[in-house]
Amino acid sequence: MKSIKPLREKKNTAILLIHCPDRQGILATVTEFLNKNNGNIIYLDQYVDRAEMIFYMRVEWELHGFAIPEDKINEYFYTLIADKLEMNYSLHFSKQIPRMAIFVSKMSHCLFDMLSRYTAGEWDVEIPVIISNHMDLEPVARRFDIEFQYIPVTAETKAEQEATEVELLEKHEVDFIVLARYMQVLSPEFVARFPNRIINIHHSFLPAFAGAKPYHAAYERGVKIIGATSHYVTSDLDGGPIIEQDVTRCNHTDTVERLVRKGRDLEKIVLSHAVFKHLQRKVLVYKNKTVVFN
Amino acid sequence: MKSIKPLREKKNTAILLIHCPDRQGILATVTEFLNKNNGNIIYLDQYVDRAEMIFYMRVEWELHGFAIPEDKINEYFYTLIADKLEMNYSLHFSKQIPRMAIFVSKMSHCLFDMLSRYTAGEWDVEIPVIISNHMDLEPVARRFDIEFQYIPVTAETKAEQEATEVELLEKHEVDFIVLARYMQVLSPEFVARFPNRIINIHHSFLPAFAGAKPYHAAYERGVKIIGATSHYVTSDLDGGPIIEQDVTRCNHTDTVERLVRKGRDLEKIVLSHAVFKHLQRKVLVYKNKTVVFN
Amino acid sequence: MKSIKPLREKKNTAILLIHCPDRQGILATVTEFLNKNNGNIIYLDQYVDRAEMIFYMRVEWELHGFAIPEDKINEYFYTLIADKLEMNYSLHFSKQIPRMAIFVSKMSHCLFDMLSRYTAGEWDVEIPVIISNHMDLEPVARRFDIEFQYIPVTAETKAEQEATEVELLEKHEVDFIVLARYMQVLSPEFVARFPNRIINIHHSFLPAFAGAKPYHAAYERGVKIIGATSHYVTSDLDGGPIIEQDVTRCNHTDTVERLVRKGRDLEKIVLSHAVFKHLQRKVLVYKNKTVVFN
Amino acid sequence: MKSIKPLREKKNTAILLIHCPDRQGILATVTEFLNKNNGNIIYLDQYVDRAEMIFYMRVEWELHGFAIPEDKINEYFYTLIADKLEMNYSLHFSKQIPRMAIFVSKMSHCLFDMLSRYTAGEWDVEIPVIISNHMDLEPVARRFDIEFQYIPVTAETKAEQEATEVELLEKHEVDFIVLARYMQVLSPEFVARFPNRIINIHHSFLPAFAGAKPYHAAYERGVKIIGATSHYVTSDLDGGPIIEQDVTRCNHTDTVERLVRKGRDLEKIVLSHAVFKHLQRKVLVYKNKTVVFN
Repeated sequence: MKSIKPLREKKNTAILLIHCPDRQGILATVTEFLNKNNGNIIYLDQYVDRAEMIFYMRVEWELHGFAIPEDKINEYFYTLIADKLEMNYSLHFSKQIPRMAIFVSKMSHCLFDMLSRYTAGEWDVEIPVIISNHMDLEPVARRFDIEFQYIPVTAETKAEQEATEVELLEKHEVDFIVLARYMQVLSPEFVARFPNRIINIHHSFLPAFAGAKPYHAAYERGVKIIGATSHYVTSDLDGGPIIEQDVTRCNHTDTVERLVRKGRDLEKIVLSHAVFKHLQRKVLVYKNKTVVFN
Repeated sequence: MKSIKPLREKKNTAILLIHCPDRQGILATVTEFLNKNNGNIIYLDQYVDRAEMIFYMRVEWELHGFAIPEDKINEYFYTLIADKLEMNYSLHFSKQIPRMAIFVSKMSHCLFDMLSRYTAGEWDVEIPVIISNHMDLEPVARRFDIEFQYIPVTAETKAEQEATEVELLEKHEVDFIVLARYMQVLSPEFVARFPNRIINIHHSFLPAFAGAKPYHAAYERGVKIIGATSHYVTSDLDGGPIIEQDVTRCNHTDTVERLVRKGRDLEKIVLSHAVFKHLQRKVLVYKNKTVVFN
Repeated sequence: MKSIKPLREKKNTAILLIHCPDRQGILATVTEFLNKNNGNIIYLDQYVDRAEMIFYMRVEWELHGFAIPEDKINEYFYTLIADKLEMNYSLHFSKQIPRMAIFVSKMSHCLFDMLSRYTAGEWDVEIPVIISNHMDLEPVARRFDIEFQYIPVTAETKAEQEATEVELLEKHEVDFIVLARYMQVLSPEFVARFPNRIINIHHSFLPAFAGAKPYHAAYERGVKIIGATSHYVTSDLDGGPIIEQDVTRCNHTDTVERLVRKGRDLEKIVLSHAVFKHLQRKVLVYKNKTVVFN
Repeated sequence: MKSIKPLREKKNTAILLIHCPDRQGILATVTEFLNKNNGNIIYLDQYVDRAEMIFYMRVEWELHGFAIPEDKINEYFYTLIADKLEMNYSLHFSKQIPRMAIFVSKMSHCLFDMLSRYTAGEWDVEIPVIISNHMDLEPVARRFDIEFQYIPVTAETKAEQEATEVELLEKHEVDFIVLARYMQVLSPEFVARFPNRIINIHHSFLPAFAGAKPYHAAYERGVKIIGATSHYVTSDLDGGPIIEQDVTRCNHTDTVERLVRKGRDLEKIVLSHAVFKHLQRKVLVYKNKTVVFN
């Protein structure tokens, strides 16, 4: 189903995500660079971690009228500023629409939530393919006119199947992957191919109840609040940098079944918020933690 | 799209929703009536409003093995108990799947959320028809295989068009209506036909910002929290009994556009929660307020 | 400082907290017992855990006019009902004001919060003694006119000092103990003397970050929400039945110092809410979990 | 009661709060001014309202080593920067401890909360005087060793009594006033003397339930969430710029008395958070709205 809402004509902008050792004048240097070259800044947020002495920044400016040609910005910024200041940075352009693959198993709530936003034109994203180890959600993909690839996985076939997945992802020029309640652990090799580019939703308030069956564990422990956590996937299971979390109250009347039901709404909203932040290039990873710009 | 998940075989149960003047022994009388007739209670919640001296109760029991035949329960309960105790009550059976019509205009988020739950088998409901004053969401209805009726409304044609709507609703034997961001005010006559059976979502924390453009009003006032409210529709605009509310934080960086975006997620979750409570027959209206059982 | 607000004259009531194997008719039996003996019920809440088939109930009724003399209620209830239905129950009278000891170390926020409520007449409680392993909060106790006992603890003196504490608690006829950021682990022997009668506040969202320095651990892990947990103390450190939890959002701008500051407000409110529920006899412990009545 | 905790030796810092029409280079200009003069920035946050084209900024830097003498900063900043860029700004020094008066009536919860933080050393503030139209809280003031002034107010004596209050406030060199559930409306003349320097707590989620008896109104309306709002006082009753709000859930079991109880905890925390933001010079008022820096 193509977007039901015509997208607004959007201005083409450039986005810089920066982190580097803090020192005097970084902020002035970067803003001057943009100002002098006629870059109209439309977003600027920065933060200094004074414990670690690290400077973080996200700045976005209009390309229209900017003195440096689009394809030279990276070179100029590196030479004139980043190299001298030992900056880690990434440069993005708003007109580059990210391409995202969704991995699912049998549960549909996160998938539906993302496809709804996609179809409603809420997100600037392309979704070329949905990959699953089960056939259950094929009808959903079909109704939204998105390619569905059934790739069952067993312990024996994992390596082979992941190779097939990688091929598919490359063919579709996928930028990042969302695990929408995909109930499989990815191999370290697979994860290493997509550093900070695989977003997972875990159905607990991490680090509480990492691993399998968190709602059962929450029930057994008798907690009064349950949560959901979206994070980048690393080789450390449920241990990657957290992007977003949310919680809801529960009490003694909540059976496991009720916790699962309450949790579904948390999961889908938390995951979609994390994906949206990622799409906006507002997430910066440093030392297994995230800076999420507003 | 038919349900992608096979529904569990569910037990057939009876549900009583009761309110009446409080007096000694009501609770014992009702539970004894069920116990003596072999009714296995699977849900019981009750509350006494000691300011108003009103007794509220929801009780649900298995019909299997219950001594009174299903089609006699109402008569027996009325004669033996309700009449004597001046009870207001309603009797429901879980096997009666409620039939719900959805009214929409142009915004899709609430519609998608409800259709996703419906398709995923989360809700015991039938949705025979979607009615709209615009064609925008016809593709959504079509993809979910639900009849879509385009009924444009103007000030002049309102009476006539509402008559058409009523006809449609009767033809489809609709039990209740959900206004999923339907941007039209219903006539008092229309509302009067469906007392406590039209559920609306208002995009503010009522009673703050009733009426049009609540996000603009919230922005102007500089509030630090925005909300959404689901309520039954009465002839008093945005003044009906509140079923569910939720809120989220905002601050000076939130433009109207950002408030609208944040609000969408509130609206869809709040509306779906309200509909779910209604479907479970857990909402009881008394004096323009609701008792919502857990 | 004695109460600054005259306490309202309160009705004398009896409270029963019950749990037992669920079976047909328990609710009717208990309410009939009260009704027949002219007990005016002013609170009744019950819940059946249908997974475990356990019935839980809290009922409160006025003693004025009740046919059974106050000092015979326990005997009658045991003989006529509890024994037959294999009930675990406890009987309380509202006129019995519980006596609570507070253990503190150096942090004052929880102590101030509780003493403020006590002084304002919010709580029906007596606080005969505050015990601490440091002198820091002696001025606070003095200003609120509460006895302060300085009992320093070292690994070597622990057994001896706990003996002194027990003596003090007995002398003051203390019913239960609140650990208001008391930074000492109690011995299993001490804990065993006060089953479900020691309330602790832990400065994390348990089971996440049990043990020492939870704010540092939360900072290191990069969570987006922090919490506080009040629970009954058992021999399992930070593993006892949870009474109340609450959370607040944090982000990359929150240093450990800021987390500590935000956390203080959570801790004091969560602890005071848990204590209030306990004072109202609304907490029932079963299998390391709590039923907390509304 | 003097502080029970020795205050850390704190660095002397300067703080600039700025708002002005947005134009290119403001941020670079301000940071350069500080950098060139050897000002070590320890906090910088800025925001551009792109609808109104207004630039907002809070910057804080260490005075140690700063090239411009403390008593010349204002003159230099005005001449070199603010005048040219049409800036509204205020300059503060962390060593200037603000002096705050508290107005109360009969309810103690907000007063206790603030005095507890003051005594615990959480806040850099002086509280020279508590003013009340009732004697009820005199014992609280006395126990915390703070001057208490009883100034009863009637419609007839209002002008005269407010004159007395102003005299007292001047004598004590009070910088700002906190109305801690002070149940009197201040005259426009009084309010005009302290623009954006009187902080009130209103016991509802404004703009819902402005005016008297908001908990009764919330109960009548049957809302599912209640709130509290702290705002600067203007001549428009309950209409001033909002600093902080918070909410908590309620339901049909909550009587007015229970709402009042739940609300107290909201009120005290919301008010104290607002006061803390004010003390940190993190609140900037513009067009009846606030920018509250993080």
